[in-house]
Amino acid sequence: MGGLASPYPSGVAPVSPRAGHEDALSALVDLVQDDLEACNRTIVARMDSPVALIPQLAAHIVAAGGKRLRPLLTLAAARLCGYPGPAGGARHVDLAACVEFIHTATLLHDDVVDESQLRRGLASANAVFGNKASVLVGDFLFARAFQLMVADGSLRVLEILSRAAATIAEGEVLQLITQNDLTTTERRYLDVVEGKTAALFAAACQVGAVVADRPRPEENALATYGMKLGTAFQLVDDALDYAADQVTLGKTVGDDFREGKITFPVLVAYAAGDAPERAFWQRTIEQMEQTEADLAEAMALMTRRDAIPATIGRAMRFAQEAKAALDVFPDTPIRRALVAVADYTVQRAR
Amino acid sequence: MGGLASPYPSGVAPVSPRAGHEDALSALVDLVQDDLEACNRTIVARMDSPVALIPQLAAHIVAAGGKRLRPLLTLAAARLCGYPGPAGGARHVDLAACVEFIHTATLLHDDVVDESQLRRGLASANAVFGNKASVLVGDFLFARAFQLMVADGSLRVLEILSRAAATIAEGEVLQLITQNDLTTTERRYLDVVEGKTAALFAAACQVGAVVADRPRPEENALATYGMKLGTAFQLVDDALDYAADQVTLGKTVGDDFREGKITFPVLVAYAAGDAPERAFWQRTIEQMEQTEADLAEAMALMTRRDAIPATIGRAMRFAQEAKAALDVFPDTPIRRALVAVADYTVQRAR
Repeated sequence: MGGLASPYPSGVAPVSPRAGHEDALSALVDLVQDDLEACNRTIVARMDSPVALIPQLAAHIVAAGGKRLRPLLTLAAARLCGYPGPAGGARHVDLAACVEFIHTATLLHDDVVDESQLRRGLASANAVFGNKASVLVGDFLFARAFQLMVADGSLRVLEILSRAAATIAEGEVLQLITQNDLTTTERRYLDVVEGKTAALFAAACQVGAVVADRPRPEENALATYGMKLGTAFQLVDDALDYAADQVTLGKTVGDDFREGKITFPVLVAYAAGDAPERAFWQRTIEQMEQTEADLAEAMALMTRRDAIPATIGRAMRFAQEAKAALDVFPDTPIRRALVAVADYTVQRAR
Repeated sequence: MGGLASPYPSGVAPVSPRAGHEDALSALVDLVQDDLEACNRTIVARMDSPVALIPQLAAHIVAAGGKRLRPLLTLAAARLCGYPGPAGGARHVDLAACVEFIHTATLLHDDVVDESQLRRGLASANAVFGNKASVLVGDFLFARAFQLMVADGSLRVLEILSRAAATIAEGEVLQLITQNDLTTTERRYLDVVEGKTAALFAAACQVGAVVADRPRPEENALATYGMKLGTAFQLVDDALDYAADQVTLGKTVGDDFREGKITFPVLVAYAAGDAPERAFWQRTIEQMEQTEADLAEAMALMTRRDAIPATIGRAMRFAQEAKAALDVFPDTPIRRALVAVADYTVQRAR
């Protein structure tokens, strides 16, 4: 799994160290189990095409795993808002599939942009099928997501998700610009995160209120929950990239470092660093002159400057804000599950 | 200018050899001049973003030229259908901008997929800004197109253009699969062309009828006109790629050959070729083993097998079908201009 050594002595079979946190997510899954299965069926049915390479490549990334976190949010948000009502309805299932298609399209394009060889511990689609197919199948999934939304028929949903799609692309371009730039401000870094990651979390949650025909304050509350949750999620991802002692399934440590990405822990370590440390970051991140030993050194500097706890601490504040946004909703099992997901997002770093 | 030598002796200033055909297009431009200028303003206004690289890169490709053929078709189709009426309206202008955004997004991604260095005789966006920015700005323009459509508010327009976007991606993937494959059938080749090129021509025309609220037969007639016109257009493009004696502005000869693309003239020359000719095509197109002299040899074989006239002849049939589709509309200056555009599409190869 990405070349990570187990933190456990060989021969010792540990109880899964993440069991407690996985349970937070599986509690949510349990509550929307039928919807999630229907969503998976929709995903498979709607990525079909007479051009066989499209479902092949899409299946590689859509069906090969992932936590389905974003469609889960749509399903859960709809339930939180009382949809489907006694008369039933499956709009939330179709829109959850849209959200996953948009996410998958951005993953395909990200991997091309990042020249990634691995995705969730498996060969990335671009590594297997080539960059060309990844670009084009990403385009297809994006278009197919819009076809699904059009079939749903809500201009409000289309507005929310088309704006999210534009914001994601802006965030990705901004990330490209800030790459290798240690003068990036924290605000600009958060702009990148809100764009590339949190905007889709926010939109995924918000459409749950739209299908349930809830008033604007509930839409906004769910959008805020998603935005804060997505930001916390990305901060933790940034921290995990430098956290070698974590059992991080399918995520290789040091990807961000090797790509010269500006992330929160780097900004913390750089700001707190002395002159030799700053010179180290300038050489490795700005000038991209890296040796084999540099990742270990980067991690050591982060430990010295408490950059990982600082990042997790910041993530906890966002998770707290996410949970607070749900206060407008009655205290139900689904709300408690969404609160637990915010905790899970941060705790997976522990 | 793609390194093309002028076919005219030096010192001789020819009357533009394409004046007659350019006039066909400029007659259409004259009829919708104000709309086209409004469309250009919308394009510039709506590709704006706080992320400066986005308008920079978009301007490189959107504003740097091109005939604006596709948005022209939307504007002209709307006029043909009586829009805007006496009460005015500018929906066709916004939707023409959408069509150009979708087209530009596919150009950006195409150039990444084809690893093109030139576009219309200028450095391609990926050559100037890099593949990463081209992928992501393409995504942005695509999303922005949908935002514009949502603001327009017609689910029918959204249906037509989201289906077109999915069909374009399918056509591009199919082209990737048929690349280097001389056993590609003519039908499969036409599937590629209808997807990658003609689907957007068709959709661009069809939405003109939708904004004018015309009945389905007129929508269908315009969709047929666009589909046939786009197919003729692509066939001629395929022919021009092997027609060194043409003054082809900004198009380098031999691009398709060097990429091993299966195009109509290749299929004709291969089908009609003797054993040594077939071996030549297999080596150069299937196995991609090419030497400097091979392009000239390919062109000589096409001349021997009349592959270029055969391709143009086929394009003329499609152009004829395009013109016939307009018969349901009254004979007006705008209809005559659209008929002339179909002729122009083929005549630019002369």
